[in-house]
Amino acid sequence: MNSVVSEPALIGVDWGTSSLRAFLIGAEGEVIDGVSSPEGIMQVSGKTFEAVLDRLIGPWVAQIDLPILASGMITSRNGWVETPYAEMPLGACGLARALVPHDSDSGARIHFVTGASIEHAGGPDVMRGEETQIIGASALGLNDGTFVMPGTHSKWVQVADGQIVDFSTYMTGEIFAALKGHTILGTLMEDHDFDVAAFETGVAAGLEGGSNLLHNLFHVRTLPLMGKIPRVATADYLSGLLIGSEVAAATRAVENIGTVTLVGRSDLSDRYDIALRAAGLETRRAPDDIVAKGHFLIARAAGLLG
Amino acid sequence: MNSVVSEPALIGVDWGTSSLRAFLIGAEGEVIDGVSSPEGIMQVSGKTFEAVLDRLIGPWVAQIDLPILASGMITSRNGWVETPYAEMPLGACGLARALVPHDSDSGARIHFVTGASIEHAGGPDVMRGEETQIIGASALGLNDGTFVMPGTHSKWVQVADGQIVDFSTYMTGEIFAALKGHTILGTLMEDHDFDVAAFETGVAAGLEGGSNLLHNLFHVRTLPLMGKIPRVATADYLSGLLIGSEVAAATRAVENIGTVTLVGRSDLSDRYDIALRAAGLETRRAPDDIVAKGHFLIARAAGLLG
Repeated sequence: MNSVVSEPALIGVDWGTSSLRAFLIGAEGEVIDGVSSPEGIMQVSGKTFEAVLDRLIGPWVAQIDLPILASGMITSRNGWVETPYAEMPLGACGLARALVPHDSDSGARIHFVTGASIEHAGGPDVMRGEETQIIGASALGLNDGTFVMPGTHSKWVQVADGQIVDFSTYMTGEIFAALKGHTILGTLMEDHDFDVAAFETGVAAGLEGGSNLLHNLFHVRTLPLMGKIPRVATADYLSGLLIGSEVAAATRAVENIGTVTLVGRSDLSDRYDIALRAAGLETRRAPDDIVAKGHFLIARAAGLLG
Repeated sequence: MNSVVSEPALIGVDWGTSSLRAFLIGAEGEVIDGVSSPEGIMQVSGKTFEAVLDRLIGPWVAQIDLPILASGMITSRNGWVETPYAEMPLGACGLARALVPHDSDSGARIHFVTGASIEHAGGPDVMRGEETQIIGASALGLNDGTFVMPGTHSKWVQVADGQIVDFSTYMTGEIFAALKGHTILGTLMEDHDFDVAAFETGVAAGLEGGSNLLHNLFHVRTLPLMGKIPRVATADYLSGLLIGSEVAAATRAVENIGTVTLVGRSDLSDRYDIALRAAGLETRRAPDDIVAKGHFLIARAAGLLG
C-alpha cells in the first residue's frame, strides 16, 4: 500500500462498535497490510475478542513477534478491557504513558490505548478511538486547528501543536437514523440518489435556525406535504438540516475555528464538506487510515518499537 | 357531566391519529355524554370510518337527528375527507365558513372542521384539531395570549380576541420516543417513577443550551456513565432536556408571550408546567374537553343549531 516498505514493526487495531480494522505497520510508520471485519464489539457475542483478533492477525504474528496496540470502543465497559479516560491536553506521549497492557490467554501482550474525557459546564464528554486518529494526523503535518470527524456520533476536536485540547460530541448521525427509521418524518422517505440541492436547502435552514431544531424538524414533513420540496428529497433535506444545525452550534461554541480538517473520505464527509463551506469555513481532508499512523506514533513514544 | 343539562343539540367528534372522542353536546354548549375509542385514523384499516362512527354515536342518533361536527386528523390525506387548510387569523366564524359537509352512505351529514396552516420564513406549519380546542377555550374566557398544547407534536399558538393569529409545531414528543426507543440513549433507561429532580436538571440544561441540542443530547449518555445522575433518572433527564429546549426556542420566537395557557391536565402538561415556570413564565390550565366547546361555537357560528 506504500512505495517504501520496511520490515513489519507493529500491529495496530482500530476496534469500534460496529467494525474493526487491523494494520500491519512498518518501521517507518507505513501500512504494509490491512484487514477489516464487521465484528465490532457489539457484534462479538460472549466477549470472545481474543478469538476474533487471533483469526484476523494470525497470519502476521505466525512469522514474527510484534507489539500490538488496540484503540477504540474495545476499551469501553462493553469491550475487552475497560481503561480509564485520559485528560486534556493529550498527545502521543500522554497516550503512551497511559497505555494499558493486557496479556491474552495465548500469551500475546496487547497494549490498549485509553480514551479521553473532558468536563464541560453542561456535562462530561468522552471519546474512544478518535484520539488515536488525531495523533496520527499530526504525522501528516495536520497538527493544529479544528478536526471534524463525521459519524454516528460526530466529534469536533480542537488540536494545538499535536495535542488534543478540547472536544465535543454531536449525536447527529444516530439522530438522523432514529428520525428516519422511527418517526413520521421517515414515512415520506424513499431510497434515492443524493439530492445535493435538497441537502443544501436543509443546510441553510440548519445554519439559520439551529437554535430551533425541534420546530424546524417539522418542516421535513410540511415542505413535501405542501409541495415545496419533492418527496424523494426529504431524507437529504433532513440530513442537511441536522448537519447544518450541528455546524451552526459547533462553530458558535469555538472562538477561533480556523481551517477545518475533515477526517475520512466517505459520502458523509462530502456532506460535511458542503455544510462547512456553506458556513464560510475552509476545509481540508485527512485520510481515514491516519489511525494506523496514530498507533505508530504512540507505540514509538512508548518505546515499543524494536 | 354538567349540572345544567338541556336537550341534545349537537354531536362533536375529535378524531385524531391514535384515538377519537365523541361528545353529545347540549343547547348551552354543555357536554351531556361522551364516548372514546382507540380507533384513531391510523388504527382504522380500509378507511371504514363510517362504520366506526355509526357504532360510537349510534345510540345518540337513534332517538333524534343531530348535526355532527368532526375535527382533527380525520380531515387529513389519510383520513375520511381531506379538507384544505384555513389561513390566519382564524376564529369561530372563519372555521364555520370553511366547514366541509359530507353525506355518509347512511344519509347522515357530517360537517368537517378544516385544519389551519401558516407560512413562516423557515417553512409551512399545519394543525388539524387544535384549532377547534383553541376556539373552545374562548368560551371559558381564555381568548388571549399563548397556548401550549403538549403532545407528540406540541403546538405553541398565539391567540388574540379569540382568533388564532400564529402557531408553531415542535416535534418534542415524537423525538423523545424515537431517542428513547431507538438510540443508545435509551439503553440505560428503565421504567421508574417520575424523578422531578432529574427532570428539572434536564430543563435547566435545555433552557441554557437549547441552541446546542445535538451536542447536549450526548450528556444523556455521559452523565450516568460518569455517575453524575442515576441511571434510572436518565429518561426524565432527557424529557427535561427536550422540553426545556422547546421552551427556550419557543419563547425566543415570540415577542410578548404573557401568561401561558396549558391545554390538558395530563402528566405531560405537568412537565410543561414545571419547565414553563422554570423559564419564568406564568401558567394556567385549560381542560382537555374544550374541544367540545369548540365544536359548539363553530356549529353555532355556522347556524347549525336548531
